[in-house]
Amino acid sequence: MKQILVLGAGQSSPYLIKYLLDHAVEYDWFVTVGDINIENARKRVQNHPRGEAIHFDVHDSIMRSQQIRKANLVVNMLSPTFQHLIALECIHAGKPMVSTSYQDLQIRKLDMDAHRKGILILNEMGLDPGIDHISAMNLMERIRQEGGHITEFISYGSGLPAPEASTNPLRYCITWNPRNVVMAGEHGAQYMEESHIKILPYHGVFQRTWSVSVDGVGVLEAYPNRDSLVYLDLYGLNDVKTMIRGTLRYPGWSETWLQIVRLGLPNETMQIPGLENRSYRELVEMFLPINASGSNLEQRLAHFLNINPTGKIMENLRWLGLFSSEKIGKPFRTSAEVLIDLLNRKLKLPEDARDMVILVNRIIAEFSDGTRKRYISTMVEYGEPGGLTAISKTVGLPAALATKLILTGQLPITGCQIPTHPAIYQPVLEELKKEGITFRERVEEVE
Amino acid sequence: MKQILVLGAGQSSPYLIKYLLDHAVEYDWFVTVGDINIENARKRVQNHPRGEAIHFDVHDSIMRSQQIRKANLVVNMLSPTFQHLIALECIHAGKPMVSTSYQDLQIRKLDMDAHRKGILILNEMGLDPGIDHISAMNLMERIRQEGGHITEFISYGSGLPAPEASTNPLRYCITWNPRNVVMAGEHGAQYMEESHIKILPYHGVFQRTWSVSVDGVGVLEAYPNRDSLVYLDLYGLNDVKTMIRGTLRYPGWSETWLQIVRLGLPNETMQIPGLENRSYRELVEMFLPINASGSNLEQRLAHFLNINPTGKIMENLRWLGLFSSEKIGKPFRTSAEVLIDLLNRKLKLPEDARDMVILVNRIIAEFSDGTRKRYISTMVEYGEPGGLTAISKTVGLPAALATKLILTGQLPITGCQIPTHPAIYQPVLEELKKEGITFRERVEEVE
Repeated sequence: MKQILVLGAGQSSPYLIKYLLDHAVEYDWFVTVGDINIENARKRVQNHPRGEAIHFDVHDSIMRSQQIRKANLVVNMLSPTFQHLIALECIHAGKPMVSTSYQDLQIRKLDMDAHRKGILILNEMGLDPGIDHISAMNLMERIRQEGGHITEFISYGSGLPAPEASTNPLRYCITWNPRNVVMAGEHGAQYMEESHIKILPYHGVFQRTWSVSVDGVGVLEAYPNRDSLVYLDLYGLNDVKTMIRGTLRYPGWSETWLQIVRLGLPNETMQIPGLENRSYRELVEMFLPINASGSNLEQRLAHFLNINPTGKIMENLRWLGLFSSEKIGKPFRTSAEVLIDLLNRKLKLPEDARDMVILVNRIIAEFSDGTRKRYISTMVEYGEPGGLTAISKTVGLPAALATKLILTGQLPITGCQIPTHPAIYQPVLEELKKEGITFRERVEEVE
Repeated sequence: MKQILVLGAGQSSPYLIKYLLDHAVEYDWFVTVGDINIENARKRVQNHPRGEAIHFDVHDSIMRSQQIRKANLVVNMLSPTFQHLIALECIHAGKPMVSTSYQDLQIRKLDMDAHRKGILILNEMGLDPGIDHISAMNLMERIRQEGGHITEFISYGSGLPAPEASTNPLRYCITWNPRNVVMAGEHGAQYMEESHIKILPYHGVFQRTWSVSVDGVGVLEAYPNRDSLVYLDLYGLNDVKTMIRGTLRYPGWSETWLQIVRLGLPNETMQIPGLENRSYRELVEMFLPINASGSNLEQRLAHFLNINPTGKIMENLRWLGLFSSEKIGKPFRTSAEVLIDLLNRKLKLPEDARDMVILVNRIIAEFSDGTRKRYISTMVEYGEPGGLTAISKTVGLPAALATKLILTGQLPITGCQIPTHPAIYQPVLEELKKEGITFRERVEEVE
């Protein structure tokens, strides 16, 4: 029997765990699900005879090492903060790892060690990153086979409420790890536009937005998503003029979130003493200079940020609860944790509402006869109202399929990899199609 | 013979290594110095019979583990980025570690593991952090013995050129790891002022400066240094009204550096392709929006940052070389690396000039008779012109003394510690006095 260890039973894990348990007898798997809150794990495993829920504390090195040594494969669904720690431990123990998080520089540096140990550390195996790579690699391969030379690559990804469910003032709902929503953009972003590299610090990311019309959905806004330029190499696009990966939101999110970033609230480094007994107003006051004028918080905040004191952004901040005199009342340590909790409560997906996942690739290619074409491939998936979410399915399924392929010997490569490698994306794409994950495509002539 | 492994032979290490080699026969030590550039290590060890220089690549896990396993104690002088990795490895191997870097949250979480292994992971054992803690703990203990109740704690630290050597436009010279100068403030800052907690994001740190008059030096500027509030607990000051740790510069540094931060140049995450063949102007252009107006870089930059196009800040940026059409010409990967190189070249301490190290504690205490006193203790150390710098001495000496105390069994505690613990600061303070590191003190009545 093969032992699969799933770390993290949060919002992105249910479909993954269900898939593994549903196929456990067929492939002779036993699935151990570990979470800091064992109840999360129990809810997913229930009483499945091939599954077990355990309490897992990533900071306990003995527990970490024991559990990983017992497994044949680790699916790491923990927060990005712990990717490196778990990858290190998997390499120490010689166990393959599948993760849906970004492969950052720290992890790339483990590549040599993973090769030496002869194991695969497979990252970015979810939706975005994940299916985005797989669909892009597949479309680009076809364009090249048609004789096209790619000059522009733009892709978008997002998890959102479905249009009919986008009814709160921010038109956003938390359907995946809210920590990643709160800390989005923290490392800035870079991309290439008409041969110009553009780099943004954190406080500039949500300022640089543009409109995008998505087939079947409507007009959304996009902001640049992290480092688009690492994909020049990975996608074999070193001579494109434009290379942009963007994140989609309903219009209006970014203008509000920009001010939250400018104020400094998404901070998970500074531990604030006594947060539990302070009010939201008192927390926000900490991010303003000493009150010398005696005027009220809202007036000084609007003035400090140079935004209209009675406008839509201020209304959104108020609606979120940031000016509330209510006590925070929970033992949070950082302002980021307070934001995560606020978003979890205020931006809950309504019962029986559907979430929506969008991936779009927009690629321009030139042909030898001088024509230029734009290829637009779009995936829009909706969740089941009241059931599993689209994000849980599209994040979890690629990781589950990769797990199956690794344990059945169908991914015979080693090192730290992401699914831009043909040995990975081709078999996973075939499996995704069987599960009904497909893209609609259209092609336009470009002037 | 006891094996000491020193990792990192950069600007802060010379005095440390000299001390260890000078005492190697007396205490039966052998000192191995590892650096990514073996020449740095060789320069420090020379041909000392009790020393060896080795090439050390922190990313090579086998080398890391082999070298650490061979040692009796590791002095970790590598960049803060690698503190966690080395501490983890020392704990795996059961070897004590001494470091001059901050003990961040990641390292604090290793405390349980260090206790289990029965070893001491001693951090913040340099100047600032290091001697600052030792001097503050000592002064506070004396004030409490006099019956004083501490209501305000402000401390300052800095490594600067001596006044007569502060002749470049930024009045700053690189005398320690320039990476820490370039990335200073990256995690923001927090402190307490008149019972109000104040938190700053990165882009706000260099905006919030104030003037400080230092005995024997003159008026300098201060900006808030990281998280001052962690010292409330560590210093036993949970009921003070004001708690601020600041970093000192000659006036004018912060107004220029603020704009470099606002632009986004101190970025070590985004790897920029082809930097070597681009000019400094082209690099700066990347941090501005697409040039739609056709006007020149300097005009657009001043407009984007809302600073005067012909003022002192622009003059400083030009003097640094940021508007130069010269090619960068070295295989740098990030804009932070370009800044580090520019600062290294433009802000070199002149030959035969002295550097200067300042530590100041300003503590207000109330007494039962209603009087209030301000205690000011000041350390100003100067380097030897052309010889070892003051920063090398004041950073390296505490780490060297701690190494001696650990290896002679005089620091019998375990876990992740900093020198606020009486078992650490008292013996180290005694040793520092013997080496001539002392504070001048004065006491003022406060109205």
